[in-house]
Amino acid sequence: MTIADRRHAAINFADKLKLIPDLWQPRVVAELNDNQFKLVRIQGDFLWHDHPETDEAFIVIDGLLRIDFTDGFVEIGPGEMFVVPKGVRHKPFAADEVRMMLIEPRGTINTGAEGGERTAQNDLWI
Amino acid sequence: MTIADRRHAAINFADKLKLIPDLWQPRVVAELNDNQFKLVRIQGDFLWHDHPETDEAFIVIDGLLRIDFTDGFVEIGPGEMFVVPKGVRHKPFAADEVRMMLIEPRGTINTGAEGGERTAQNDLWI
Repeated sequence: MTIADRRHAAINFADKLKLIPDLWQPRVVAELNDNQFKLVRIQGDFLWHDHPETDEAFIVIDGLLRIDFTDGFVEIGPGEMFVVPKGVRHKPFAADEVRMMLIEPRGTINTGAEGGERTAQNDLWI
Repeated sequence: MTIADRRHAAINFADKLKLIPDLWQPRVVAELNDNQFKLVRIQGDFLWHDHPETDEAFIVIDGLLRIDFTDGFVEIGPGEMFVVPKGVRHKPFAADEVRMMLIEPRGTINTGAEGGERTAQNDLWI
């Protein structure tokens, strides 16, 4: 076995995102202890929701993400991140497509405590 | 108060990295529950170490990071990530400067179980 055979593979965000055909469908690419790194493509409006059990981190890869809160909003561009604290109601919005990473505990549902028809299948890996 | 006053601030990686004058000195920029997001600039060789208590995630922002393992290596470029599993001995290396993000539980020390003079001050925020 040569050293090249022993090369481990990095996770390439652009390559992984190409494997996600649908918007609003997070896919897990890695885990850190009990937390998951998920890639997702979004466009348009999501629903108001919160996660009563956990903070939720957003790292934007491409595009401009807006997250509305009851008391304001934040805009997050490429090379930027934001952490929505546990229990804070929020609504993501993307005028144009946004490609981003979510970091949150394994088991966290995209619609949080709200549920409903926009709830994505959870814990799907690419 | 206008809506503009209620604008929350995203964390911009490039802006934060400009505030870190020294190599090998991680700085915390955000927390997710008990985990911390740390930015760090590195160049050259680090020491062999492991983290017996936790996985450790690396997301490269600029440059090419190499992590050696006892059985191989991985190269991680911009827009890529890798998670070193708990207890796995590893040695980061950067031929040219690498700017990257670490994600790991609060309290994780850069030199892990190895300690020594390359141990950075922990839990410093920018």
